[in-house]
Amino acid sequence: MKLNTNPVRGTVDYLPKEMEVISYAKNIILETYKKNGFLEIKTPILENLDLLTSGDSGDNQKLMFKTVKRGHDLDLTKENLSVADITEEGLRYDLTVPLVRCFANNREKLPFPFKSIQIDEAFRAERPQKGRVREFTQCDIDILGDSSINAEIDLLVSGLEAYEHLGFNRLTVRVNDRRILNELIVRCGFDENSTINICVSLDKFDKIGLSGVEDELIQNGYEESKVKTLTGLFERLKSSASNEESYELLKSLGISSEVIASVAKIISTVQKFAFVGFKIVYDPAIIRGQGYYTGTVYEIYDDDFGRAIGGGGRYDHMFEKMIGVSVPAVGFSIGFYSVTMLMAEKNIEIPTKKLALVYKPDDSFEKVLEEKQKFKHRGYEVSVFAFPKNFNNFAEKLKNNGYKLLVKMSNTEDIINL
Amino acid sequence: MKLNTNPVRGTVDYLPKEMEVISYAKNIILETYKKNGFLEIKTPILENLDLLTSGDSGDNQKLMFKTVKRGHDLDLTKENLSVADITEEGLRYDLTVPLVRCFANNREKLPFPFKSIQIDEAFRAERPQKGRVREFTQCDIDILGDSSINAEIDLLVSGLEAYEHLGFNRLTVRVNDRRILNELIVRCGFDENSTINICVSLDKFDKIGLSGVEDELIQNGYEESKVKTLTGLFERLKSSASNEESYELLKSLGISSEVIASVAKIISTVQKFAFVGFKIVYDPAIIRGQGYYTGTVYEIYDDDFGRAIGGGGRYDHMFEKMIGVSVPAVGFSIGFYSVTMLMAEKNIEIPTKKLALVYKPDDSFEKVLEEKQKFKHRGYEVSVFAFPKNFNNFAEKLKNNGYKLLVKMSNTEDIINL
Repeated sequence: MKLNTNPVRGTVDYLPKEMEVISYAKNIILETYKKNGFLEIKTPILENLDLLTSGDSGDNQKLMFKTVKRGHDLDLTKENLSVADITEEGLRYDLTVPLVRCFANNREKLPFPFKSIQIDEAFRAERPQKGRVREFTQCDIDILGDSSINAEIDLLVSGLEAYEHLGFNRLTVRVNDRRILNELIVRCGFDENSTINICVSLDKFDKIGLSGVEDELIQNGYEESKVKTLTGLFERLKSSASNEESYELLKSLGISSEVIASVAKIISTVQKFAFVGFKIVYDPAIIRGQGYYTGTVYEIYDDDFGRAIGGGGRYDHMFEKMIGVSVPAVGFSIGFYSVTMLMAEKNIEIPTKKLALVYKPDDSFEKVLEEKQKFKHRGYEVSVFAFPKNFNNFAEKLKNNGYKLLVKMSNTEDIINL
Repeated sequence: MKLNTNPVRGTVDYLPKEMEVISYAKNIILETYKKNGFLEIKTPILENLDLLTSGDSGDNQKLMFKTVKRGHDLDLTKENLSVADITEEGLRYDLTVPLVRCFANNREKLPFPFKSIQIDEAFRAERPQKGRVREFTQCDIDILGDSSINAEIDLLVSGLEAYEHLGFNRLTVRVNDRRILNELIVRCGFDENSTINICVSLDKFDKIGLSGVEDELIQNGYEESKVKTLTGLFERLKSSASNEESYELLKSLGISSEVIASVAKIISTVQKFAFVGFKIVYDPAIIRGQGYYTGTVYEIYDDDFGRAIGGGGRYDHMFEKMIGVSVPAVGFSIGFYSVTMLMAEKNIEIPTKKLALVYKPDDSFEKVLEEKQKFKHRGYEVSVFAFPKNFNNFAEKLKNNGYKLLVKMSNTEDIINL
């Protein structure tokens, strides 16, 4: 029988060349975060459906993979069968919901505030398209239990250090605060309960422009005059020439000085601790779609490619909503897929010393292994191969998999460049 | 609402203390395998059910998690609904089946023979019990495309080096060959088609003893006299005092000299390249349950704890069966869960330099970050904390999470041992 050998729709096989970048990036991020005092945890991919459908994860819940009940638990003869009747557990769609559960379950064992690292897989059944896969790595640090802006600063400084170590040296951090957006929206005459829905539309500004946002809000039944007032303010804020001009404008619009000061302090402190070639600005268009953000929100852009490669924000109410205990929380997430794609596009070189040691059938394999050990001791990554039938094809494939050097057992003094 | 915050039945949350061991072990294994010329790949957790139910994976298939069809694809009103009607994909139960698929799909891009590393999650809905979890890390190297015993030797030498680097220094490798078992079984008068079933019973020798194996075989309908002949031979082989005595006995039983020579050569060569404190022996009781093994099989035992902590073997027919192309294959798998558990039990020390830097609310957070940078440059992993209300409880939790040092902003010269 000949099976289909493609990976499942929307998923990817990572071959050695790609894994080299992925593995290298993962290591650097993990090491940087550990140096900055974050602690790694790992939670299961499978979670209870009750948990996954609590909280404010909106669309992500709709995109959830669910597992089928097993054995006697699955009764397909039941009448009026519902999805709930046949499903048992779900695959997590992010690492934040499991983090909340795990922290709640282990609070007594963990330091407080708890600074976590999670680099792990999540699943969403998105329509397959470029840059979106159904099974992907998320790469998060979070601080649980610190309501001060020191948490945001600690996350941003540590996160930016990770980008720097990965070789990203031209970045812009765009910062906003959900409380500013909420105040602006209410000040334009909208109801307080509409803020999340209006934020979701405003979040599309990048894709559909301001007039697109207006159309959508009006179509959603909001009063045209209020909509125009809001987009007008939004436009004025977008065109500010500096962070200071933005703060002045926000002040003149009557936004709480405490919230403005919080944003300003985060921006000025992070600026001092970040590497050359990096900017941090206030940007009213940073909204972040999810319903659970309550305060600071931020996104990281690569200046060379103009793409968002990370982001995060404060979600102070998620614990309360999910498990009935109040724990302030902030997260910072590196867009791992974007970052590794850009590293490949930027040709960021991964240091390796791959060497192929080629032997003939009549060579003693013990001698081959002895030579292998010698080259390993000299720092090479050594793979032994029997002399191939089609040498050119063999050498070509080695090159395509990151091998630069080849040695034949017949003359081990001669290190050949591939 | 108060949710259940326990992880899903049969799964585990790994907290920082455990993750430190896991992360350390993963790194050492990966680096050792790379040094030995293996290349890392990563395949999706989700696979098509067609693929997962092909091959000879026996019980593992029964323990498979399946995902529910989504949207319009799921019709629960259909009559006589079967599991196939409602399921879409499965979670892989091992890394071998995905490896075969991925290699078949990317053969033109990969070096040949292909030496792969996979360290990744697999899922089996086993009845939860000590030492068995439903979501677990597998840690495999495989050589695809080499039919010579050089492949077995390369795998065993590399695998043993990984154990050595992890701090395991008293190991026994037990080697057998399925062809020996098959010849013995046929020689006792059994039918060639029964070899796999008989091997499955023999494999329980460790748990149920030789009389248990006899009972099971007789219950399964095999002739008592043949069964007794087989267990008699098995007992004689088990009591051999040395590898050489075993080879002699096998020879006298008429086992093909070619197969005996293959086992003997693997054993003698690996012995030469392995570290002190390690033994390699022929053991007729090493069988490995899976149906797909075709030649050499081996298991690694920790001598201090008498537990199997790894194993593998040759599976030359899996490609043929699954994708209709013949590719010889051998694998070596480290029992990652057992290894990390034993590392904890053996108190193998993970090198870390964790330091907590504690500040008061009126300390400037910029100054705190400056101090943090200084300690980082001195090689510490530095976590900043606001001065806690209950210092003793705070310090206790830090200690339990691997922190050994604490510095207060009020006197940064004074590094306090926790």
